[in-house]
Amino acid sequence: MHSVAINSPRKQFLVDFFRDVWNAGDVEACRRYLAPSYTIWHDPGDPWEGQTLDGAGFQERLRISRAPFPDQCFEIVGLWEDQDALAVSWTWRATHLGDLPGFAATGRRITMSGMTSYRFENERLSGHWQVVDRLGVFQQLQAHRAAGAG
Amino acid sequence: MHSVAINSPRKQFLVDFFRDVWNAGDVEACRRYLAPSYTIWHDPGDPWEGQTLDGAGFQERLRISRAPFPDQCFEIVGLWEDQDALAVSWTWRATHLGDLPGFAATGRRITMSGMTSYRFENERLSGHWQVVDRLGVFQQLQAHRAAGAG
Repeated sequence: MHSVAINSPRKQFLVDFFRDVWNAGDVEACRRYLAPSYTIWHDPGDPWEGQTLDGAGFQERLRISRAPFPDQCFEIVGLWEDQDALAVSWTWRATHLGDLPGFAATGRRITMSGMTSYRFENERLSGHWQVVDRLGVFQQLQAHRAAGAG
Repeated sequence: MHSVAINSPRKQFLVDFFRDVWNAGDVEACRRYLAPSYTIWHDPGDPWEGQTLDGAGFQERLRISRAPFPDQCFEIVGLWEDQDALAVSWTWRATHLGDLPGFAATGRRITMSGMTSYRFENERLSGHWQVVDRLGVFQQLQAHRAAGAG
């Protein structure tokens, strides 16, 4: 549906954030992208939903979140910039290589889609409001189990 | 997180679309808002995902989608306009008054969140890419069942 035009500094900043932080898992890179405090305003299923994290707290969230899916990759589908906020839609792909609650590592390739809005504060990210299709992930893991594969 | 500034004609148009079409269920109003064909580009769990609908097809989708939740109400949380597209985040509340697959009507109040991006064509809506937290809905219905309430 969307061609992703990276036609502003903030869009480029967000694309780089996804590449370095969430795709590559570069914990040290967080400091380039994040405001001193970062709030997870809304993110159903995220264990940190509702919390405001400092730099160390965000790095811990990054490590724990990526552990079951070390090769995870977000592909950005759409970007919308308006005033001091950006919205992004994405497709996520990863191999399930670490345990999740209720699901030991399956080795299965998983896909997920989601949309996130980010707030900027002094040109750093200060929080997000997000919805992801977590049911789709459970269905893929359950299908794997139903097939007797793990 | 966001205060919703309705500071453009397209944002007003989208707010009116949610009010008249999805909240009020006004089937006849669809013609004011929709392009001659409307594509559901991405919408996991939506039975029409991947289809392109004409006006009658969209009206049928509206009727069927709203039937289990006749008092449904979308509250817009954020709006982002960029080029020829708009992204919107929302919270949805409804009473579960009609049957769903696997869940007979429970009478329970349900909440859901989601984000949607809309494409415009000649100032009418021509399609969307959407993610909703459908797992959250299932969990609310399952909790109702587990409580022996329905």
